[in-house]
Amino acid sequence: MHTLVVYDIESDKIRNRVITACKDYGLSRIQFSAFLGEIGHNRRQELEKRIRKILGKNRGKVNFFPICDKDFGLMKEIVVGEMKY
Amino acid sequence: MHTLVVYDIESDKIRNRVITACKDYGLSRIQFSAFLGEIGHNRRQELEKRIRKILGKNRGKVNFFPICDKDFGLMKEIVVGEMKY
Repeated sequence: MHTLVVYDIESDKIRNRVITACKDYGLSRIQFSAFLGEIGHNRRQELEKRIRKILGKNRGKVNFFPICDKDFGLMKEIVVGEMKY
Repeated sequence: MHTLVVYDIESDKIRNRVITACKDYGLSRIQFSAFLGEIGHNRRQELEKRIRKILGKNRGKVNFFPICDKDFGLMKEIVVGEMKY
């Protein structure tokens, strides 16, 4: 089971703390605003709780998508040029 | 079956054309860099082909995630304040 986290967070400070949380859970940055990694239901819930706490009353939106192995295998990617995150 | 499209596209002009393509396929903007909607495998492949053509040689990255109904039901969202897209 994989987890995809996609976020829009106004404050750089808060965004950086969310990024650290995603990394702590072993997720990798796949886009400027998205992290992906192999974590299951319980750890995803923990991460969600932690991010909810980090966000507090700061403006932002975060989506957590569980992605089963079948769907993960069908994921497609277009990359043009080198993208550094 | 749902489809999630997440993008990082440098050029405003190209990004806007990708956004139009997502809307044409009935997807809704859920974040600055993400669209989500109820489209299946064939239409997702069509959209991918169209976005590949739009991107051409312009720098960017686009991910296409198929999301089955079960995973979609487990999707979580944190929203603080009003986010306008």
